[in-house]
Amino acid sequence: MRKQRQHRDKTILLSLGEQIRKRRVELKLTQKQLAVRVEMHRTYITDLEKGLRNPAILTLDRLSEGLETQNWRLMQHAESS
Amino acid sequence: MRKQRQHRDKTILLSLGEQIRKRRVELKLTQKQLAVRVEMHRTYITDLEKGLRNPAILTLDRLSEGLETQNWRLMQHAESS
Repeated sequence: MRKQRQHRDKTILLSLGEQIRKRRVELKLTQKQLAVRVEMHRTYITDLEKGLRNPAILTLDRLSEGLETQNWRLMQHAESS
Repeated sequence: MRKQRQHRDKTILLSLGEQIRKRRVELKLTQKQLAVRVEMHRTYITDLEKGLRNPAILTLDRLSEGLETQNWRLMQHAESS
């Protein structure tokens, strides 16, 4: 049970990171440019894209604004992939 | 800008709380029963439903499992309402 959860957690964060990167690249933004847009540190964006962060809902929402998408879309891909 | 963000943050958390409550009631679960299912404290569920918490993505995901729904669905309603 716990092991399943750990696996799921990892999958969700990795997939979320992929979606963030994908959308950022679509917008032709560097990590630094996105960081400035959303007022976060560049290294935080780097970590997010690597699936190393578990952002809070409101952090995800700020990111989604910078990525010109809806917050749930970043999650939707995270779960369905 | 900051004021808009504060308003948006509040709206998102309130709406997320409403969705959690709505889904919990649909399942005929008490806050206590949901808390046991997802291994969280009952007061945390209470606060979430009131829009007083900004849960991390993985916390939202655990909740969505207990609520037998998908994590992004809770967010989707939060944003569209």
